[in-house]
This record gives sequence, structure tokens and C-alpha cells, in this order.
Amino acid sequence: MSPAAERVMARADALATISETPDALTRVYLSAQHLQSNQLVGQWMRQAGMSVWQDSVGNICGRYEGAQEGAQAVLLGSHLDTVCNAGRYDGMLGVLTAIEVVEILHQQGLRLAQAIEIVGFCDEEGTRFGITLLGSRGLTGTWPQGWLEKSDASGISVAQAMTQAGLDPARVSQAARNQEDFSAYLELHIEQGPCLEQEDLALGVVEAINGARRLTCRFTGEAGHAGTVPMHHRRDALVAAAEWMVLIENTTRQQGGNRVATVGELHCLPGAVNVIPGEVMLSLDIRGPLDAPLERLLNELLANARGIAARRGLDFSAEEFYRIDATPCDLHLQTVLEEAVESVQGRSLSLPSGAGHDAIALAERWPVGMLFVRCKGGVSHHPAESVMAEDVSLAIDAFISAVTSLALKRA
Amino acid sequence: MSPAAERVMARADALATISETPDALTRVYLSAQHLQSNQLVGQWMRQAGMSVWQDSVGNICGRYEGAQEGAQAVLLGSHLDTVCNAGRYDGMLGVLTAIEVVEILHQQGLRLAQAIEIVGFCDEEGTRFGITLLGSRGLTGTWPQGWLEKSDASGISVAQAMTQAGLDPARVSQAARNQEDFSAYLELHIEQGPCLEQEDLALGVVEAINGARRLTCRFTGEAGHAGTVPMHHRRDALVAAAEWMVLIENTTRQQGGNRVATVGELHCLPGAVNVIPGEVMLSLDIRGPLDAPLERLLNELLANARGIAARRGLDFSAEEFYRIDATPCDLHLQTVLEEAVESVQGRSLSLPSGAGHDAIALAERWPVGMLFVRCKGGVSHHPAESVMAEDVSLAIDAFISAVTSLALKRA
Repeated sequence: MSPAAERVMARADALATISETPDALTRVYLSAQHLQSNQLVGQWMRQAGMSVWQDSVGNICGRYEGAQEGAQAVLLGSHLDTVCNAGRYDGMLGVLTAIEVVEILHQQGLRLAQAIEIVGFCDEEGTRFGITLLGSRGLTGTWPQGWLEKSDASGISVAQAMTQAGLDPARVSQAARNQEDFSAYLELHIEQGPCLEQEDLALGVVEAINGARRLTCRFTGEAGHAGTVPMHHRRDALVAAAEWMVLIENTTRQQGGNRVATVGELHCLPGAVNVIPGEVMLSLDIRGPLDAPLERLLNELLANARGIAARRGLDFSAEEFYRIDATPCDLHLQTVLEEAVESVQGRSLSLPSGAGHDAIALAERWPVGMLFVRCKGGVSHHPAESVMAEDVSLAIDAFISAVTSLALKRA
Repeated sequence: MSPAAERVMARADALATISETPDALTRVYLSAQHLQSNQLVGQWMRQAGMSVWQDSVGNICGRYEGAQEGAQAVLLGSHLDTVCNAGRYDGMLGVLTAIEVVEILHQQGLRLAQAIEIVGFCDEEGTRFGITLLGSRGLTGTWPQGWLEKSDASGISVAQAMTQAGLDPARVSQAARNQEDFSAYLELHIEQGPCLEQEDLALGVVEAINGARRLTCRFTGEAGHAGTVPMHHRRDALVAAAEWMVLIENTTRQQGGNRVATVGELHCLPGAVNVIPGEVMLSLDIRGPLDAPLERLLNELLANARGIAARRGLDFSAEEFYRIDATPCDLHLQTVLEEAVESVQGRSLSLPSGAGHDAIALAERWPVGMLFVRCKGGVSHHPAESVMAEDVSLAIDAFISAVTSLALKRA
């Protein structure tokens, strides 16, 4: 294991102690712990030869100057906030490995054609205020109207919390960076899924952050006595839903293309052992790396549901309550990352990201690329979240290789 | 419509006004309304020439003597208690039509070889104390130990409620009748299902009261992130349950034999839109008129579930929490009832009873037969419960025909 990887593991442990609750890692936007972790990360950035500042929304930022002062930069980063009862690598690993990239250049006294900047985003998870990507949307200057008025569970608004944290809510827009400041954004992150582990690989390159659609669906049949209504007279909403769920799995598997579909919630009414279900409400969550095929899959699944309902004399309805477009990663950055991954582990794997990341916001302004690191069992958002130091070692090697190859020349 | 049917409809309306709640018919065991309805029914029995008494558990009983005093009797009956927010025919129709059978003999001054007794059972539904068939099990002398100590929602025990109602809990066993008192028990009841309506028939003859098994079943897979776990790596407990539910419907329909299978409750854990379900608990209720084929069906369904679980790498378990054997109706009584039904509506239909009835308890001592009357839409246990006076008219005719044919000679 490299000293760099060892330092990353130790620093992840150190950050994990900065928690609002003693037994479970929780660190949310604008908490005292947020400011404390910014200070610590800023200190590590300074040790790596960077100039450091906290921006107007609370991101901790560092710059390692290029050969010429004021050069365009390659931006590296991820987030420092957590969900409740979190793991210690989700977000943090991307910031800590980025610091190692700069550390090595700094140790060798190397200045490249492009500068390197690192940002530790203040809020990606949205744990406190129910709105996500506050840090990265500060950088892109795309905070929607109304965000300052959003409040947490105690009724404290974002604006009030900013003031308490020594930030000026009137200056949010000053966190926005100019288009020409960066040539690219690269984010290293744990996979939060099982694909790399299944493929026995430490690293993979993200092709896209999946687009997603979420719907609330409803089959309405007729409740009835479980003992007195013969099978062929029933309009059982649960069996209709069951038939559809089997079809959802089959269709999604057959179509492939890294699309996934999940029914995660199901409520059955009236919900008694001796009553035929008259109504079933269920959620559908579908995701995929390309929007058009995802939309086709969704339409096909909804047509299937309507067909099942019609054949059984039931009603079906569906209402979409969440939609996010897919974020394709930049093709050139994918190639650069793939070459870097191949150079350290022989082959690369291209995979979609099922979870959302800061790169979604950044992609509105700059080309984005993402490097995934294997995590144990695909487990994330949980204290059992775990990465191997050997994998982190390979990740740092690949990250350095990709970043230097980009920053060696002007974009 | 016959005057007898008109009187039955009017008396059902009158009984429906004896309710603990003004807007919804509810009349439970040992309530003031129970005693009040006993009084009214007893009065109608007396008008039909019967001697009347309330037995020691609170059943209202009447006897129309045979040609010789002390003759064995044909027993007719059903229950006078209700569920909460009940219909007005479930139970009551059987008592009221039985009174009309006696009324006609009485008007014609006919005494048959056998006496005719009628019982209005005090508790079939079990609404108040969570135990069912208290009235009919009083008659059979099979109250289990502990029933007197069961308590209602207010903490009042059966024994206390009996005392409040002027009954002596020490004398429960005195309600038991001797084997030789009755040659047969006949019960007329609304179908509480849609079969007669679908067949466009007013009346049908019950082949058996279905046996039933109820189980709590569980598929255990692995929860996971709905975005990051590919379809082929999932161990989704809900899709496994869905596959099983489709199979339950198919298998039960294909096997026929008037068997029914219902999944009425389903709980999906953790139950979030973006989490693959790791565990699903679901109920299975299966019923049929014959125990052996019902048992075979249950075993086949459970084997299917284990097969689905094994193929998907999940665990499956099932625990039976309720079982009641089928109650076959007496073959001779079925024939007598069929001939009576054919004589009034041209053809008869043999069908199982999906719901439980007082006849289940009575069948432990005496041959039982049941006559079903069509009810609108199969709806029961609901204020919308409805029968047509024309059907009641036919039912009384068939009931009289069957009862006299039985009581004309000694058993």
C-alpha cells in the first residue's frame, strides 16, 4: 500500500470523527461539524501546496497554480457532507484522493500547463434542508429562487443557518465560477453498487449518471370476501400488480442497456387476510444512462400495466412525481480515465452511476468525468461502507495519471 | 310476492332498527339490543304457535310441537347478532323464514311426526369477544374452557356481561341439547357471494362449508439501492412474491373444485421508492369444500414458493396460524333441499359456502343442511347487503317443502 493511500485512509478516519452524533457519522450543511471539517480539509490542502478559501456558500476550495499564474484549471472534487448514520468514504474519498494528486505534484515541484483546483462541496446529500447539490449549484451559480427560505426540521432557514455559520446569504451568487475558469471536472467516488466487486475490479469509469423517473401507480379492482368470491369472478388488484411486477423485471432484464426498474413500495387495500384486495398503490423507480431508451422502457411498462388492467377489468393509473435526465460523462474524459485505469489494473470497465453526484450540477457548465472505486458489497449510506486501501492506492495512481495527462497541456 | 315474504322483509327492517348505533346496524352478544331482539323474535315465534324460551347462553328458542308431545325435532335456525355496520339479512333471514315455515303449519293446524324447533343464535360473528359461534357451541355443549374469561374492548368478561344481562355464567352447560333431541339442522342464509347472481338463480344448496387455512409467509432477500444494483444482481423479495402470487392464481384456477386462494395482506420492507425490497410478508388464505384436495393445493403452492425462492437465492418461510376443517353438508339433506329448490325454481345449484356459519358447530352433533339465497352483488357485512322479496318468497316455499318432507316422518 502506498503512503498516499495510507494517508487517505487515516484522513477518512479523522473526518469520520467530526460528527454531530457520537455513535453514528452525521455531518450536515452549515453545522459546526461542517465548518470544522472544512478547516481540517483546508489545512491538508495547504500542506499540499494549495492556496485555500471557503467560498460564499460554504464549499472549501483549494488551488494549485499552473506554470502560468491564472491558468485555466482542471477541477477535482466531491462532497464532505453526509447522510444520517453514514459511511466514511461517500464523498470524502474523492476530496482526499484529489489532495494526494496535488501532493505528489507539489513534492516534485511540478507546475503544469493547467492549474488544479479542488473543491470539497458543502452539501450534496440534502440531508438537512431536503434540497440537494447546494454546494455544486453554488459553484455553477444555479441556486433556484426560494432555496434561502427552505428550512430544516427545527424550522431554521438556509439563510438563518448561513448567518449562524458566518456566511452572508446575500452573497450566494459570489460562489459562482466563470465558464473559462475550468476545462473539466473530475470526480472520484465509491461505486455504491456491486458491479466492480462482481467483476473483481478495483476501478471503473462512469459512462453516465443515470436518468431516473419515479411514479406512483395504482390498480383499482374490487374488494371482496376471500371465501365467497370464486377465482373467476375476482377483480383482485394485488394479483394484477403481481403480474405487472413480474413483467417489469422480465422486460427490464431483457432490454439490458444498464437500465434498472424497481417497485420499492407497495400498499394493498383494505389489507386484511380474508379480503380480496380492491386497490394497490405501488411505486415504480426506473433509471438508465440514456434518456431515450429509458423513456421507451417506461412507456412500454405503462402500456403493459394498462393491458393487464384492461384484461382483468381493473383500472390503472400512474403519476410521475420525480424525473431527472441522465447526465452523460464527457467522451474525451471517459477515454482519458479509461487509459489511466487500464494502465493501473490492466482493463477498464464502463458502468453507469445509479446514484446522483455533484457531477450532475457541474455537467451543466463543464465536461465531467467520474472514476469509481469498488466498495464492499456495494454497501453505502451505512456505517458498514468500506473500501480497501489497495484499491485506494490504485485509484490514486489512476487519478494522477488522468489529471496530469489533462493538465499537461492547455485545454 | 307472498304475504309471508312481505312479513319477512318488514321484520328484517324492524330488527335492523334494534342497533347499538343509530346510523349503522351493530348488535353484539349480551348487549341490551341483543336481549331486545330476542324478545321481539320470541314474540313472533309465539304468534306462530311456538312455545318460547331463552336458553342459558342467550339463544332465543321456540318449539312447535309434533303430533306427539316430546317428539324428536327438525331444528331450524341462524343468528341474530351482527358485525359492526352490518347488513340486515346475514343471520336474521334464516330465523325469520323459519318462523314463516312454522306459521304456515300453525295456520293450517298441522302437527307433523317431528316437532320443529327454531333457534335464533346469540353470537355467531364473534364481534364483541373475538371468539365465534358462542350461541351454537352453547347448544352443542362445547364451550371451551376459558371462554367465560374472554373480555371485550372495555375489559368486560363474558361472565360479567352474562351477569349484567341476567344470565348465570355457572349455567352455560344447561344450554346443551341432547343428541336425540334433533334429527337434523337446516339453516337458510344469504349467499354472501356472487355465484347465484351470476347463475341467475334465487336459491342454491350448500355442498359444504369450506375448510380454510391461513398462513403468514415471508420471502427474505436482500435490500439494495434501486439505482446502483443491476437487475441480474438483485435478490428482490417483492418480485419473488409477485411471481408466487401469479402462480397462486393460475394453479388455483386450473385446479378448480371450488377452491379459492387469496393474498390479502402484503407488507414490503424497507418500503421506500428507491430501495430494492429485502423482505416481504404476505398472508395466504385458501379455502375449499374438501379437506384433502385443499391440503394438496396448499402443499403445491408452498412447494412453488420454495422453488421460486431457491431459484432466486432467497429464503421462504410460512407459518399456519388458522385452520378449520371443511364441514360437509349431509348428503340426504342436500338431496331433500335440492328437490325442494328444483320444485320452486326449476333447477338447483350446488355450491360451497365460503363463509363460516352456525352449521359448523351444529355439524359436530347433527346432520346439517344449508339453503342459500341470492344477495345483491354478493355484498355482505355491509349496509348495502340486499335480497329481493321475490327470492325470499321462493326461499320460504322451498324451505317449507324441505322441512315438511323431513318432519312428516320420524327420522
